[in-house]
Amino acid sequence: MPVAPGKPVPTEGPQETGGNPRAGAPVGATHPLTDGPTNVRLAQYDAEVKASFDRIVPVLKEIASHRYAPDFTERARRLARDTLGVELPDHLLDDAWVAGIDMRRLFGWCVFASYHRASDAFYANDPLGGRDDPAFQRFLLDCGFHLMDVTPCADGRLAHAISYVLRLPYGNVRRKSYAGSLFDIENTVEKWVETELQRFREGVPNTADAPTRYLKTVIYHFSSVDPSHQGCAAHGSDDEAAARAGWERLEGFRQAIENGFCCGASVDLLLIGMDTDTDAIRVHVPDAAGRCDLHRWLHARDLYDATAHMTQQQARAHLTEAVRAHAAGTDGAGRPAPGPARRGLGRKGPATVPAGGPAEGMVALIARLIENNISQIDLVRQMHAGRYQDTGHAERFIGAGIGFEEIQLRNLTYFAYLNTVEEGAADLDVGIRIFSGLNVSHGLPVPVVVRHDYHGSVPGARQRAVGHVDRIAAALLARYPQLVAQGLLHVLRVVRDCDAAHPIEIVGSTLEPAAAEH
Amino acid sequence: MPVAPGKPVPTEGPQETGGNPRAGAPVGATHPLTDGPTNVRLAQYDAEVKASFDRIVPVLKEIASHRYAPDFTERARRLARDTLGVELPDHLLDDAWVAGIDMRRLFGWCVFASYHRASDAFYANDPLGGRDDPAFQRFLLDCGFHLMDVTPCADGRLAHAISYVLRLPYGNVRRKSYAGSLFDIENTVEKWVETELQRFREGVPNTADAPTRYLKTVIYHFSSVDPSHQGCAAHGSDDEAAARAGWERLEGFRQAIENGFCCGASVDLLLIGMDTDTDAIRVHVPDAAGRCDLHRWLHARDLYDATAHMTQQQARAHLTEAVRAHAAGTDGAGRPAPGPARRGLGRKGPATVPAGGPAEGMVALIARLIENNISQIDLVRQMHAGRYQDTGHAERFIGAGIGFEEIQLRNLTYFAYLNTVEEGAADLDVGIRIFSGLNVSHGLPVPVVVRHDYHGSVPGARQRAVGHVDRIAAALLARYPQLVAQGLLHVLRVVRDCDAAHPIEIVGSTLEPAAAEH
Repeated sequence: MPVAPGKPVPTEGPQETGGNPRAGAPVGATHPLTDGPTNVRLAQYDAEVKASFDRIVPVLKEIASHRYAPDFTERARRLARDTLGVELPDHLLDDAWVAGIDMRRLFGWCVFASYHRASDAFYANDPLGGRDDPAFQRFLLDCGFHLMDVTPCADGRLAHAISYVLRLPYGNVRRKSYAGSLFDIENTVEKWVETELQRFREGVPNTADAPTRYLKTVIYHFSSVDPSHQGCAAHGSDDEAAARAGWERLEGFRQAIENGFCCGASVDLLLIGMDTDTDAIRVHVPDAAGRCDLHRWLHARDLYDATAHMTQQQARAHLTEAVRAHAAGTDGAGRPAPGPARRGLGRKGPATVPAGGPAEGMVALIARLIENNISQIDLVRQMHAGRYQDTGHAERFIGAGIGFEEIQLRNLTYFAYLNTVEEGAADLDVGIRIFSGLNVSHGLPVPVVVRHDYHGSVPGARQRAVGHVDRIAAALLARYPQLVAQGLLHVLRVVRDCDAAHPIEIVGSTLEPAAAEH
Repeated sequence: MPVAPGKPVPTEGPQETGGNPRAGAPVGATHPLTDGPTNVRLAQYDAEVKASFDRIVPVLKEIASHRYAPDFTERARRLARDTLGVELPDHLLDDAWVAGIDMRRLFGWCVFASYHRASDAFYANDPLGGRDDPAFQRFLLDCGFHLMDVTPCADGRLAHAISYVLRLPYGNVRRKSYAGSLFDIENTVEKWVETELQRFREGVPNTADAPTRYLKTVIYHFSSVDPSHQGCAAHGSDDEAAARAGWERLEGFRQAIENGFCCGASVDLLLIGMDTDTDAIRVHVPDAAGRCDLHRWLHARDLYDATAHMTQQQARAHLTEAVRAHAAGTDGAGRPAPGPARRGLGRKGPATVPAGGPAEGMVALIARLIENNISQIDLVRQMHAGRYQDTGHAERFIGAGIGFEEIQLRNLTYFAYLNTVEEGAADLDVGIRIFSGLNVSHGLPVPVVVRHDYHGSVPGARQRAVGHVDRIAAALLARYPQLVAQGLLHVLRVVRDCDAAHPIEIVGSTLEPAAAEH
């Protein structure tokens, strides 16, 4: 267990971090719809957590400079405890006088300890306040949706999509990240089935006769600063390909539901693009038949500008009207929309569907998402001078497996959602390649957290989850033998009972005394 | 494609096969409840399919004896075509004059071709007549069950459990085989959810307000001839351990449903033991609270003897009464049952559950299963002199993946139900070990059919299924590099659209010209 129990988090402010020099108090004017206090809180949380990781290298350098001191062990311990809040264990220090200090192992230990502490704080304190928001759940139902299921890309630059970019309560939204946003249709059909049954049997979140639908959303991404290099790697930084692939997957899901289930079963779909440099979104507003135009969108940045000098009330009305008008093929002022001719993709709607915009509920949801995104645009403008300095990858560790609800921060984690290394090999290889640049090129190991959440109410589920992480960790180490041989890959094994607000449980790592062979 | 299209199956009778010398016309008296005509048909189908595999080695020996003939290629082709119904391809024969004949590759080709033909015949002709039996579905509903879900052991000696041992229509019963009968609880909960939703939405097979339940059944196995060696390998040939593990898994499933879903959700459970030497079953009749006693059972062999001289009507009444009386703790004559004291396992029933036997529906179902099994006992008595000659493993190939509905024959296939080699490694290793004895020790390769069924109604599902079998085949070859290097492992890749009565589709194999490196 690499964390110091009960140890308080060091209290340096975010402005002192090495990784994010511009983070600090907000400056300048904000949009009337921007939630200033929340922005301060979110920026502070982000800076604090990242600082706890970014302090590790300077502190280890300092520790290394004491390597010849007669009281090295004691100094190293004290430094790690006082500056990182991490207890270094005996077995990583005791033999340093004869074998030298293994800085790679110390680095891995500190990364895992920092992850453990951040995770515990998340489950204990709910720092984002998003565990459960009944008001949002009611709003969603009023909009005609009983579940919002979002697939962002697995890219670490989208890991904050729910809690920051869209400002949604993470506990009321299903998130499943996939490389290229290419979610698994079969898995999503299973979730749809589970959701419908709960409505039929338990009336949760509403009864099955209520005319609401399952809303599946895909967020693809692009880079406004360096479009041809920092877009989605899975789609060769080609925005149009990313949008098309996302929409095809969404349509595939809808067809699977409509073909696989009778009685008019269907779902609603929403495609969103996200600029990873500014966090501004663009929404492909669907038409009344649920079709989406890949070449037209509403850009939150434009709406920010158009409404920046209005009152809150005026701005909100403008957003709603803009969404409604956009789908109808006109701009907010009722003129025909500019840009390429409309190209509705996918199926033709049934003849009974009226032409024009989507249902009012969809309009209201999209307007809300854009309003929420305006706060995030301001956060990035104010705390990061308009755009992130880390336009590329800067993740601190790889998360592999199932779970990681507590990872809601940008560029903290490269996420590989997987059941097995065999199936997730391509995504893992991408992650290892990213960390070869970030860490290995500097002689630092790749830290991987292998995770499996389970339902504690199912007998034996914990034991099977432990079996899963053990298997995945073994397969991971077997896949990258050269990194392992050089001490450049370390793995932490974690399970969690997701039936309750339990913290994670560490079940092992390659840094334990018994795992010294790694 | 290793099969000769449109080639009729050679018509040698079963009595000419090498593998099963005793199979032939039934002899001797049978039980009044035995379905004689069906027994003849089932025995014949079993003998024919197995004969098509068991002819391969003699024919290849014959082919090998012609290796120095100037017209070897033509002779080999003719022999294979006339005796096996298999077309040997050019690329396996053309270089024989210089490189020698690769008998291992020819063997693999013939096994895969025989599998392909048997599979095609199964889907085309439904030789077991079990694709759909509305009468059984109605009977099941009348008994209080809307789905019967059976997990036999993955052992090839139980592959005929549904269609032969229990005489159930395979199309109306869910079968998922697992090593040691240790089925996956999470996967079964998913199936339960899917089943309930179908009842709610579509009223199929009945509406959700009907008081029927999902019935989960486990079949463990033992050997009466060689109990300490030929029982279940996964449980060290320990019958009691096999029964206990099966029951614990069943109880775990019930708890998962009861804890995970509200409104009184539950399931019914049934534990059955099977003697792999005689195919006789023993049923652990549950009590009124759904509990099961691991140390008491009704043995079909005893009931066979007790009713052998009755009329059909008397015999049926006796079976029903025996089931009812057994659960109540008395034997058929109302006397207290012999044997160890009753040890009800698992949960205590609620106080409102009456003591005594199960519901009448469960009694009727068990009586039916025993009656059906009596036919199978007679089949084994008559066609195999009371017990199988192949008490141990004698499978013809390994089936790995998801599907194989057409495999309903004893000792034809060692089955490894898996999504990935990573998860199924232990089961595969057992299979490879079995075939090391059966095939490799005689210089013959291990034939593995990798299979993934898909729902054609789901867009892209076929393409993903092909991706799955490609991935599994690659992982399989990577796991056993020594066998591959020696040409002792061959893999056929197969997918199937299970939404319709489609035949299988071969998508590749290690025996194709392009796969010559294997």
